[in-house]
Formats: sequence, C-alpha cells, structure tokens
Amino acid sequence: MGNIPKIVIVGAGYGGILTAQQLQKELKHNEASVTLINRHDYHYITTHLHMPAAGTDTIEHSRIPIAQLIDEFKVDLVKGTVKEIIPKEKKIVLEDGSLSYDYLVIGLGGEPETFGIPGMDKFALTIRSINSVRLIREHIEYQLALYKNDGKPGRLNFVVGGAGFSGIEFVAELADRLPQLAKAYDIDFNRIQIINVEAAPTALPGFDPELVEYAMDVLKRKGVNFRIGIPIKECLEDGVIVGEGEKIEACTVVWTGGIRGNGLIEKAGFEVMRGRVKIDDFLRAPDHDDIFIIGDSSLMLNPEGRPYPPTAQIAMQQGVICAKNLVATLRNKELNKFVFSNKGTVASLGKGEAVAVVGKRKIKGWVAAQLKKIVDLRYLFIIGGIPLVLKKGRFF
Amino acid sequence: MGNIPKIVIVGAGYGGILTAQQLQKELKHNEASVTLINRHDYHYITTHLHMPAAGTDTIEHSRIPIAQLIDEFKVDLVKGTVKEIIPKEKKIVLEDGSLSYDYLVIGLGGEPETFGIPGMDKFALTIRSINSVRLIREHIEYQLALYKNDGKPGRLNFVVGGAGFSGIEFVAELADRLPQLAKAYDIDFNRIQIINVEAAPTALPGFDPELVEYAMDVLKRKGVNFRIGIPIKECLEDGVIVGEGEKIEACTVVWTGGIRGNGLIEKAGFEVMRGRVKIDDFLRAPDHDDIFIIGDSSLMLNPEGRPYPPTAQIAMQQGVICAKNLVATLRNKELNKFVFSNKGTVASLGKGEAVAVVGKRKIKGWVAAQLKKIVDLRYLFIIGGIPLVLKKGRFF
Repeated sequence: MGNIPKIVIVGAGYGGILTAQQLQKELKHNEASVTLINRHDYHYITTHLHMPAAGTDTIEHSRIPIAQLIDEFKVDLVKGTVKEIIPKEKKIVLEDGSLSYDYLVIGLGGEPETFGIPGMDKFALTIRSINSVRLIREHIEYQLALYKNDGKPGRLNFVVGGAGFSGIEFVAELADRLPQLAKAYDIDFNRIQIINVEAAPTALPGFDPELVEYAMDVLKRKGVNFRIGIPIKECLEDGVIVGEGEKIEACTVVWTGGIRGNGLIEKAGFEVMRGRVKIDDFLRAPDHDDIFIIGDSSLMLNPEGRPYPPTAQIAMQQGVICAKNLVATLRNKELNKFVFSNKGTVASLGKGEAVAVVGKRKIKGWVAAQLKKIVDLRYLFIIGGIPLVLKKGRFF
Repeated sequence: MGNIPKIVIVGAGYGGILTAQQLQKELKHNEASVTLINRHDYHYITTHLHMPAAGTDTIEHSRIPIAQLIDEFKVDLVKGTVKEIIPKEKKIVLEDGSLSYDYLVIGLGGEPETFGIPGMDKFALTIRSINSVRLIREHIEYQLALYKNDGKPGRLNFVVGGAGFSGIEFVAELADRLPQLAKAYDIDFNRIQIINVEAAPTALPGFDPELVEYAMDVLKRKGVNFRIGIPIKECLEDGVIVGEGEKIEACTVVWTGGIRGNGLIEKAGFEVMRGRVKIDDFLRAPDHDDIFIIGDSSLMLNPEGRPYPPTAQIAMQQGVICAKNLVATLRNKELNKFVFSNKGTVASLGKGEAVAVVGKRKIKGWVAAQLKKIVDLRYLFIIGGIPLVLKKGRFF
C-alpha cells in the first residue's frame, strides 16, 4: 500500500472538482490515492454568486455539498484550510494538520485584485464566496433599515467598482432587486442610486461593442448610472473618490474590478505575475513536474500572446486535462497539451435579459437569457448529472 | 363654519385611533372638525412588534394604513411629525407647518427609558416602531453574515436588557428564530447565546410567580440564558458591563427595560414624572381642560395608589373615554370618569407557548397561546372589523 502514489487536490472549485471527477473515471483500483481538500464541505458556483449577493436568489442554488459530487470510495475528502504549500518537502500545511503528496493540483481560486487603490481592501465588499455573498446581501438590506432610522443619504447609493462581466452581472441583479427592497422599506426607488464605475474606456472590455451598447441600454433603463472611463482613486468608509477628486457618497461599495492569483502560491516560492503562475502546456508549474496549477491562479497565453481571462470555462477544461495528465504521468504515457476551446460567453443582464457571443454569433435579449440558463444547467449536468440538474437547476 | 370647534389628535397609536373612531361614531354632522396627525401613514400594533423584530413575522402583519381605519369624510388625516406643542397659543408645530386647535388629544406614545445607563441611548436597539424593528431584524442577520467573514465571537451573542413583558416576548421570538438563522448561515446554534439581563429580582416583575417560573422554564429549554437580579451598568459598542463589572461580549444589545413619556410633553411645559403627566379622572392635563393625554405619556394611579403600567389595553380604553369626554364637553354634559377594566394579561413565549392571567385564572402553554391570538384578533376586530381580521390576522 505504501507504494500507491498520492495525489492531493487543494480547492474544490471548478478546476478541482473536474480534476477529481475525471480522476475517479480514469484511475484504476489502487493506481493512486486521491485526496480533495477544501475549506468548506460544499462546492460553489462562482458564476452564479451575483444573484444571492444581490438577494435575487438563495445561496442554496449556488452551492452543492462536495460529498454529492465525489465518489467517496475513490476520493478522500478533507475539510481544511490550506495555510502553506511547501513544494520542497512535498507537503501541504493545513490550519489543523498537514498532508504530504506525490502529485499536487492547486485549484485554490483567485483573490480580489484591488490594484493598490487605497481603502479598497478595507472598505469594499467582494463577490468571492458564499460567506462574502451573504455579507453583501445583508449589508445592502441593513443600509435600507439604517436609512429609515438615520436618514443618511449615502445609505441609498450603491457603488459597484468595475464593469467587467462580474460587475455588469451584479449591477443587473441589483437593479432587479432594489426596487423590491425599496418597496418593502417604504423608500421611493428614485432616491436609490446604482452607480457602476469603470476605469477602462468601455464597459465589458474586450466584448463585442454592439452587445456592450445593448447591455448598457438595458441596464440604464433599469436605473443603473454608468461612470465609464473614470477610475476609482480611493475607497472610504462612506464612499469613493473618483476621477479628479469627485466624491460619490455611498455606504456600500462592491469591488469587482479584478482577480489575481491565490496569495499562497507566491508564498510557496513560485514566480508569479499578479499572483498567477505561468504554467507549461501540460498545466504544470515551471520546474515542478509534480505540481499542476489550474484555474484563477494559472497563467496561460492565447495564440495572440495575451493571457486568457480567468473563467469557469477554462478552469473546467483545465481540470479534465489535468486529470488526464496525472494519469498519463503515472502510466509513463505522453501528456496532453491543453488547448482552450471557447464555447462562447454569456453575460446575464438580470431577469429575462442577457448578451452572448457564441462563435461568431451575437445573441441578445430573451434568447440570450435562455442560453445563460442552459449554460448553468449544462454545468450542473456535467458535475452532477440529471439529479443535480433537478435539485439545483433554475428553469424559470 | 368658523364656529365649528376643532379637535386635533396627535399620534395614531392605540389611544389616538380609538379616540378618532369613537368620535366618528358619536359626533353629529358639523358638531366638530377632527384632525388626526401622525408621523407615518400607517398605524402599528406595538404589542406585535417583537415578532418582526426577531424576524418571526413580516412587518405587514404589524401595520395598517390609517386610511383603512378612519372615515376620511369625518376625520382629516395629516401626515406630519410634531415638533412642538404650544398650549398657550393652542397650537401644534409640525416639521412642515403648524395647526391650531380648540381641543387637543395627545397620544404620541412613549420613548425608551434608559435610566441614565451610559451608552444605552447610543448603542442599544429598541423595539418601538416599524423602522426600529426593521433595523433590529437586519442587524441580527447582519451579525451572522459578518461572523462568517470575521469570526468575532461577540457577533453570536444577543443581549436583551429587561425581562418585563416586552423583553420576555422578544427573547422568546429570538429563541425561535435564531436556530433557523444559524442553520441558514451554517453556524452551530450551540455557539449562539441569547442572554436576558434583568436588574429586578425576578423576570416579569409583578406577574404571578408560578407563571413566571413556567415562562422561564419554557425559555430556558429554548436556549435563553437568564441573568436575573443583575443590573446593566453600561452599554458599549461590543457588549454590556453588568453587575460588579463583568463584561458580556455582544454586538447586539436590545433594550426593553422601560418606557417614559414623550419628550415633547415635558418641553411643552407640563409637569412630568418620567415624562408622564398625571392626568385627572377625565383624562385631562392639569389646568388644561382643552388637553387630553392618553396612552404611554399619561400617568394614572390604580386604587392602590401605584401607576398603571403603560399598555395597549389601557390606551384603548382611554381613547374611548377621551372621545366621549370630548363630546360631553362640546355638549356641556357631565364628563365620564375613567375606570380601568382589567381584561387580563397574556405574555407570548414564542410558537405555541404563552402565560396568561385572566381575572383570577392562571393559564399557560398552548391554551394561553391561543388566547394571545384571540386578543390580537379581537384588537383587529375592534379597529377594523371582520375585513381587517381577515387581512391582517394570524390564525396559525
């Protein structure tokens, strides 16, 4: 038994879950032991978190017990928080114990990138976990409750920093949710402001300009104020300083402006760019054939030489190839080069509205919104089959 | 038209609403004009607020649009906040205008009495209005959301100051609600503490000792920690100092320890005791036959010479007699002496549990809980008839 190679996967996000599931399928009995370590006993669907964050859906649609996704006869689950990775000793230190590995898969997920904007770390909320999302949802409602007692105008202003996919999808949900909350709190919705601030010269940078315009029109009609091409200079407890020093009063600031790699990876001694490790074609860390890095902490360049943005789609595809390459390594077979296959991009714009690019097709409105649902259901199907689709799927 | 006497009622609580409704019934056409002034366009059922405060019921079961309770052909409704009462000029100053009167009914409701405990005004929440209740509900949930992000232990401690009727009814709802919230936030309920601190030597002071013991047993089984006979010395942002200097960490402190009269009345020049005016047998302020004071700001002694506690029951009875005495005054008839008729007392202990005294009968458990519902429904029937009972009543 001592000769069985030990694979440890840290992080049960898109990459980690797909790796574990693919290993389950491919590994023969006693070919390797697999341990999946995660901070929580649930997997969460990051691309869905903008909804419970705004309060337009419950968190239960955004998370799944890991035990439901994994065959516990084939994969050991360890609930634990990774404190340190020590590649030289082939060891993972947990808050509560430690584990050694022969092969390590790092799928720890990213961290908010605040680009050094003063106060952003301290005062802004971020959409990055079930717990952070609970906080945003409650923070928003608490502001309305406080407003009815102290009348502070900044309580009715909601600033979202960043108009990338996360920012746009979140403001869309806010625009759906806040009119309902306003009614529940006897507040005139016209007094509530949703302000989306983006430093880049356009919303959804890199996305099709025609669809960007469509998306902004939809959101403006829902009441979103865009401040595009205007950087946030500082985040305060009661607002943000933008552009040339203008202050926007706001007791709620949600930062969606960027993602960097997980801080533990830099601490482990890897060379990083914004916390990400430039991995090889087989998803391995440089000079570490025993360490695979996938998802938000991995850096890969597209054929034009620009980094792929961190998405669920790429993490999932990496997970599958990572598992295949682990098996190939164990069997001394040739490894598979990772080639990203772009299935398209959908950005939800709230209830019944979305924009999408699939291949060369541009899709918008209701049809795109249905497509978004199909993408979500497809993911549930991939990781959990029909039972999970029926349990967690949102069909309407 | 100039000769029609003008009756102004300030406050649409139990006393004000009952006065207005009784005047509607008794006044003849053009015998007097009646104006009811209230800060909100709704009446709220103060005795029910402990439920939405804990989150065990929606606020909509606790409030009713005043327009539904009043015949607007007979009573003018003015939404406004009273800033000052000037008896010499027979005038009411609103935030936004002013009104003169020939007869004034003050039913403005009380204010929390903090007995000078340092910090209580600043840091404790109080159950006294729809808005304060929204704040308590959201504050509680926000603490759990914060706990999942910062792990501060005081976030899981909920201190209720005062174990009178309000305090007991509120801790009972908290004890029903917090296990549900704990589950929703993945928190072990055993880590949550509900602490009820009372300076008097017993909970529910003045109530039947056998029922007090029963009530405490029920609540202890639900997880409430009682600290009876222990005064709160100071309220801080993150807890309370009790007894001989012991600190209880808690990010939530709800003060239910006392009610005093409305501060506007003392400012108007009346002689007060804890903000209350000792009214005559006909409910009039001393030396002011044109001013009636009812409800929490009125002070009346029972046959044993002790003040009646401020309750909905006495305010309602005062409202009816107040209206009758206004009509009698207008008609130069003899006024009616107010005699309190005790219909009994029920304290809810959460779902399916209560204690009650009706005459000499002691009632507890499920039967008392049904009685509590009947008392609530009876009130809805009195002020709004069957339609209101059907609209706002909680039958289960």
